[in-house]
Amino acid sequence: MTHIPGIVITGASGRMGQMLVRTVTDSDKVRLVGALERPGHDWIGRDVGEAMGGQALGVAVTDDPLEAFAKAQAVIDFTAPAATLEFAALAAQARCVHVIGTTGMTAEQIAALEPAARHAVIVRAGNMSLGVNLLVQLTKKVAAALDEDFDIEVIEAHHHHKIDAPSGTALMLGEAAAEGRGVRLEDVADRARDGITGARQRGHIGFHAIRGGDIVGEHDVLFAAPGERIVLRHVATDRAVFARGALKAALWGQGKAPGQYDMVDVLGL
Amino acid sequence: MTHIPGIVITGASGRMGQMLVRTVTDSDKVRLVGALERPGHDWIGRDVGEAMGGQALGVAVTDDPLEAFAKAQAVIDFTAPAATLEFAALAAQARCVHVIGTTGMTAEQIAALEPAARHAVIVRAGNMSLGVNLLVQLTKKVAAALDEDFDIEVIEAHHHHKIDAPSGTALMLGEAAAEGRGVRLEDVADRARDGITGARQRGHIGFHAIRGGDIVGEHDVLFAAPGERIVLRHVATDRAVFARGALKAALWGQGKAPGQYDMVDVLGL
Amino acid sequence: MTHIPGIVITGASGRMGQMLVRTVTDSDKVRLVGALERPGHDWIGRDVGEAMGGQALGVAVTDDPLEAFAKAQAVIDFTAPAATLEFAALAAQARCVHVIGTTGMTAEQIAALEPAARHAVIVRAGNMSLGVNLLVQLTKKVAAALDEDFDIEVIEAHHHHKIDAPSGTALMLGEAAAEGRGVRLEDVADRARDGITGARQRGHIGFHAIRGGDIVGEHDVLFAAPGERIVLRHVATDRAVFARGALKAALWGQGKAPGQYDMVDVLGL
Amino acid sequence: MTHIPGIVITGASGRMGQMLVRTVTDSDKVRLVGALERPGHDWIGRDVGEAMGGQALGVAVTDDPLEAFAKAQAVIDFTAPAATLEFAALAAQARCVHVIGTTGMTAEQIAALEPAARHAVIVRAGNMSLGVNLLVQLTKKVAAALDEDFDIEVIEAHHHHKIDAPSGTALMLGEAAAEGRGVRLEDVADRARDGITGARQRGHIGFHAIRGGDIVGEHDVLFAAPGERIVLRHVATDRAVFARGALKAALWGQGKAPGQYDMVDVLGL
Repeated sequence: MTHIPGIVITGASGRMGQMLVRTVTDSDKVRLVGALERPGHDWIGRDVGEAMGGQALGVAVTDDPLEAFAKAQAVIDFTAPAATLEFAALAAQARCVHVIGTTGMTAEQIAALEPAARHAVIVRAGNMSLGVNLLVQLTKKVAAALDEDFDIEVIEAHHHHKIDAPSGTALMLGEAAAEGRGVRLEDVADRARDGITGARQRGHIGFHAIRGGDIVGEHDVLFAAPGERIVLRHVATDRAVFARGALKAALWGQGKAPGQYDMVDVLGL
Repeated sequence: MTHIPGIVITGASGRMGQMLVRTVTDSDKVRLVGALERPGHDWIGRDVGEAMGGQALGVAVTDDPLEAFAKAQAVIDFTAPAATLEFAALAAQARCVHVIGTTGMTAEQIAALEPAARHAVIVRAGNMSLGVNLLVQLTKKVAAALDEDFDIEVIEAHHHHKIDAPSGTALMLGEAAAEGRGVRLEDVADRARDGITGARQRGHIGFHAIRGGDIVGEHDVLFAAPGERIVLRHVATDRAVFARGALKAALWGQGKAPGQYDMVDVLGL
Repeated sequence: MTHIPGIVITGASGRMGQMLVRTVTDSDKVRLVGALERPGHDWIGRDVGEAMGGQALGVAVTDDPLEAFAKAQAVIDFTAPAATLEFAALAAQARCVHVIGTTGMTAEQIAALEPAARHAVIVRAGNMSLGVNLLVQLTKKVAAALDEDFDIEVIEAHHHHKIDAPSGTALMLGEAAAEGRGVRLEDVADRARDGITGARQRGHIGFHAIRGGDIVGEHDVLFAAPGERIVLRHVATDRAVFARGALKAALWGQGKAPGQYDMVDVLGL
Repeated sequence: MTHIPGIVITGASGRMGQMLVRTVTDSDKVRLVGALERPGHDWIGRDVGEAMGGQALGVAVTDDPLEAFAKAQAVIDFTAPAATLEFAALAAQARCVHVIGTTGMTAEQIAALEPAARHAVIVRAGNMSLGVNLLVQLTKKVAAALDEDFDIEVIEAHHHHKIDAPSGTALMLGEAAAEGRGVRLEDVADRARDGITGARQRGHIGFHAIRGGDIVGEHDVLFAAPGERIVLRHVATDRAVFARGALKAALWGQGKAPGQYDMVDVLGL
């Protein structure tokens, strides 16, 4: 019998899934006990380590979440909203901590997690890195400390495969800035500055989405006043920081009371 | 009798006009011989130095360009397209070098300078700084040396009063990049990336216009490929660099053959 | 009779002194009532506005501090340590708020301000800008929140005339980082990394002093861990931000209890 | 029989060695035919793919360079100066292209490559990335175009394991800047600015070595004048760019005349 929590990775064949498998197997604080893919995926039944082009890990990829979750203490899940909702119900049934890194969930989908959260711990965050979560908090504080003489602009850069703009993290930073100022982001967001725009409006928050190469994720929050500027910047250079954050969340959630949490809780910021 | 060229400043009461007056009077290579404003301006008839809140400079502001130009060897002109066209004809008549920093001229307006350029030297540039003109050349070279694995993005930042986006200089850099690649900028420009955009298109050139505080002018040209990036950056912190560039152009033009020139000619880049 | 505080500027002929004179005369919340220079300076007796090359301001430059302070409610002083100590005693005698932006004071010199601070308000800061003081606080917080997986480096850039390295502000940021971590800066500072240095030591704080052109003052605090980085950056582009901070301090000090204060008090950060 | 060049990787167990093995096996333009380690290394005799924790590649690690080189058309070598000299002689004997990414070679060691270069192609570069080699050329051009009003500073950042400062690439950039200006780097290098340094000397070139986290390699060349700055920046985020450059050199060298070459030749810059 072991007290080392067993982890299931969903979407194991994806770029983030493989990163999670590696991070879990590299850690001595957790064990990999399951790897999930959707029915029909050609990895089903194969050893996940071998499917990834490495050595066998003793865990076969499965398409049966309930069976996988039954052996685990936590599920780490960076998939898509519909799958995540299904996993939440099953993880709650198995009393697993459900760590959700899935992005693009609507307010309705987030609300639909509530029944699961009455029975199990859910940790959900748009960005699992320590640094970004700290930056969100700093942004709120700085926006609250400075008046509107400081124009706020959020500038992010990501790889050229990214299909949405601005990034979820950029919007999270914009929300934090708006909250710090006591305004609603939707009232002040400048999301596409092009042509004869007129002078910048005082109190607005601008967004810029740079796309190029394989940039993992970079976010600047600029506060620019006459004669001085502050910039709060986060640079992620390795997706492993998101995987490590998810692992930390999975460990943190062990033994906590059921409910919905985020990385600010996990990191104790 | 002196060989030190006499200079007239147009639009003398504006922010750039006053900077030009100071730059000319601080230099021992040129003399200020005229300061122009539009008829009805309340500086007309006053000493330009006193009107600027300083000591008298012995030059009264006038609304008569021909009289002013007759005493000068060069006119430095950062005004508006219509005024600039009028000044070009008068400067040519007076055989003055006409240094044009006016922005926003249409192709037709630029073509309309041609008759003047048959009789006098015209130096025209969207940006008079040494650094920006060098950056434009580097951008063209780098774009030509790298293939489309390198995604190009032009990011500029200016003060919150600026009414157009992206800046003329950003577009000039984008043109240089497109020319280096042998494509037309209008075919590849991404000027407002927002929402579900899909993946970035290979070969496109993105633009971003940051606005905040009193930023004088900053331009980045990013070339981002998998695993590496090059950035060419120019930062202007003092409008005096534009004034010094204009002065250099006024001196360079003395004795040159009539015709249209730009800062690449002046700087010998 | 007026309730608008009267201000004396010391070292009025210097670059910072002239900036202070301009900032005070541009403000409608204070009045310029005195301009001080050292005995023998050629501005003594001249109108300070005219001496600066502008229009008369009705204030003659004097070398008698006591006479000047007697008419004032505050003294703004960016001079040198010895002069500042002398002014502190006289300002206290005149019950003037003494705003001290003088840098390079030793611990002994700072202690020697204490008698004056028993009778009058002293506000002293190595950097008077709102942004830098906020950055100092953020640096302390972030250093406390992150462990030593995050390597800290302070990078500053200033104009080529600056004679000391690293800047006082960089050291202030380094002190804040060390304090956040509960260590002493002198035990962990890496101040000249050159040659075969061996691997970076965990927990150390590096300093870098870039010098070039007329850079007013830029400071980065880098926190770099495997896979991610946070940067806190301040950029000053106009010395006026220091003058505006000093003015704010002079106003804030009116009516406060005697004692020594800093910009964190003034800004209510 | 195949025309696809066979490649040997030296130092196969190291971080860069493994990256090279992966890059060669991922490419369809070359084949991996050998993997070298020093006698006594515990990988000797094992399949290199399995030793790296992946699947078998059909190539056993050997400690016999001559046998390995005899089957190959190129050797890619990022080891240490002494080993590289030995490999150069053997590679020349086998008429292999010898691609040298080894750093820290003295002038004497570089000269000692000459006999080998009479019989075979040697491509040697301090940095194999396309971007850095382009940056070196730009730096030389810009330094030549600008006068000493522009202060030059080279700022580099690397991971905290790096034991030397500044980086070889930073010195290469400094050399390029000095060459552009027609001066010798050793006469103008400012390598440790700390304490009361006095004002920056005109014409000098400063160096700064930031160390933190797992930064792969970032280099800025700053040209700072009053009122404006140019920055030329390269950011490497993946060591694969060095491996891909080495592969490109190995392919380029096939059929070339014996001699010493560098990446500028390979890249046709």
